[in-house]
Amino acid sequence: MNEQNQTVKPYVIGLDLGGTNSVFGIVDARGNIKATTAMKTAGFENAEAYVAASMKVLQPIIEEVGGIEKIKAMGIGAPNGNYYHGTIEYAPNLPWAHDVIVPLADMFSKALGVPVALTNDANAAAIGEMMYGVARGMKNFIMLTLGTGVGSGIVVDGKLLYGSNGFAGELGHVVVMRQDGRSCGCGRAGCLETYCSATGVARTARELLQTDARPSILRGLNPEDITSLDVSVAAEQGDALAKEIYEFTGHLLGEACANFAAFSAPEAFIFFGGMTKAGDLLMNPIKESYQKHVHVLFRDTQFLVSSLDGSNAAVLGASAVGWEIG
Amino acid sequence: MNEQNQTVKPYVIGLDLGGTNSVFGIVDARGNIKATTAMKTAGFENAEAYVAASMKVLQPIIEEVGGIEKIKAMGIGAPNGNYYHGTIEYAPNLPWAHDVIVPLADMFSKALGVPVALTNDANAAAIGEMMYGVARGMKNFIMLTLGTGVGSGIVVDGKLLYGSNGFAGELGHVVVMRQDGRSCGCGRAGCLETYCSATGVARTARELLQTDARPSILRGLNPEDITSLDVSVAAEQGDALAKEIYEFTGHLLGEACANFAAFSAPEAFIFFGGMTKAGDLLMNPIKESYQKHVHVLFRDTQFLVSSLDGSNAAVLGASAVGWEIG
Repeated sequence: MNEQNQTVKPYVIGLDLGGTNSVFGIVDARGNIKATTAMKTAGFENAEAYVAASMKVLQPIIEEVGGIEKIKAMGIGAPNGNYYHGTIEYAPNLPWAHDVIVPLADMFSKALGVPVALTNDANAAAIGEMMYGVARGMKNFIMLTLGTGVGSGIVVDGKLLYGSNGFAGELGHVVVMRQDGRSCGCGRAGCLETYCSATGVARTARELLQTDARPSILRGLNPEDITSLDVSVAAEQGDALAKEIYEFTGHLLGEACANFAAFSAPEAFIFFGGMTKAGDLLMNPIKESYQKHVHVLFRDTQFLVSSLDGSNAAVLGASAVGWEIG
Repeated sequence: MNEQNQTVKPYVIGLDLGGTNSVFGIVDARGNIKATTAMKTAGFENAEAYVAASMKVLQPIIEEVGGIEKIKAMGIGAPNGNYYHGTIEYAPNLPWAHDVIVPLADMFSKALGVPVALTNDANAAAIGEMMYGVARGMKNFIMLTLGTGVGSGIVVDGKLLYGSNGFAGELGHVVVMRQDGRSCGCGRAGCLETYCSATGVARTARELLQTDARPSILRGLNPEDITSLDVSVAAEQGDALAKEIYEFTGHLLGEACANFAAFSAPEAFIFFGGMTKAGDLLMNPIKESYQKHVHVLFRDTQFLVSSLDGSNAAVLGASAVGWEIG
């Protein structure tokens, strides 16, 4: 990119494509979000209808920043996103991309007339963190996104690790419980995300409430409705059972990170997503367990929480992928 | 490197520094070993004495190829080798590098007057395989060396993964048995290498002979003397117990590889080292177990055995590290 282009096209569109909401932002090179808009992700018959609706909500914010000639590129972070092909592949939580391979980058590129790059949502978060967050200046780190599921973005030598097929970094699907593991959406059992996601924490709560007789604030809730937030609120009020749920979760995560460290020797693990709101309740057991389980060569690894504002981080991450291609 | 240099300095010295033997080879760019020599690794008071002795055995083979002016560089593959620093760090099996950090690359560089690069022995094997073996043309693969221990070299996007501190790729020390795992030389328990190395197979044999009443050829041996080779010979003779030992070993390895795949999505796993002599006895259960345990995204990974001649492969791998720096 030359100086002139940089001046003429100062913005990138970032799209955080989630199972529920699609959030669009127009972002400058410093990570300032100049304009933003959103729509529901579901309710479209197919990907064409989704792109058409996106164009409608995008139009006003593109005008707001001076028109499409100000836009250098677009970056998309999406579940089951494949960077190599610009596709979303068999995304279990996207009704219009459930059983198919959707060439979403190409579709948006044709509709907008700018280059479009697409990556897995956790990879987008990692790139965003490297450009605008606590990972600035880091060459080797692992981002773990703890939300409904567990995602990961692995940065090696300053670059996202994509592997031979574009799907590297699926650490939520590393099996951490070999025996009697919980069944996972991927069809297997014992995956990290069945324990250490928000839904995993809720599962642990339901299990423990059945097997442990201690009193707990959580017993006042309908077991099926318990969320990870309920558990963290209870733990903060001193509820011993709720605390134990987070200790168990953090312990498993720390153990898993000790194994991940033997792979890529990261400078830091960076945590992102709704679960990080639990703060030290989660981070302390992770760190303790990591030190207890890790090989002596990897003891110095840092444990950090994303410094990006939650609602903007995913859009910034997506836009960062756009800067790379633009 | 320019054409002239290439003509003038056509060779690299490779050193495969093992716990027992140090094997030197002078190698051309096509992987032909032009001259070779060896000496015992142990029996030296310190690293200086080791380097001095190395220079003595090297001198004749350097003369043989036309003198030091024909040598472009030297590459060393060594246990606990750190590529970033050119050091051997606290190598448990090297008496003169047991409790210290030895700047071996610098020491050889001063003695020889050529650039010297040093890396972990498993990393050297991976680079050798990429330059001369079955991994030619591959950009993403994982090399697992199954010998006295389990080592690994991870190649991502055509480059060795070194991580933040130079020690990435210690997959032998990924914990595969969380409960009641075997104690490991690293001070922890349940590491992959306590089960899937040659010594791990011997441990499995001793355990199974105690807990299983079936007759077995292995009962004719002193339990403490049983080797992985004894087990594979017995298995080839149809010994059911011996077969089960390899099935157990391969099963664990396949399961571990399924987790490793979720990290770097390799095109292939490549196995190297004495244990691979067991052939299908080991490889079949690995492949079966991998397909049973792996996430659907990583089903297409190949399982290969090193194509390099065992005795030369390590020297070729070490020399390859030299070509990179030379």
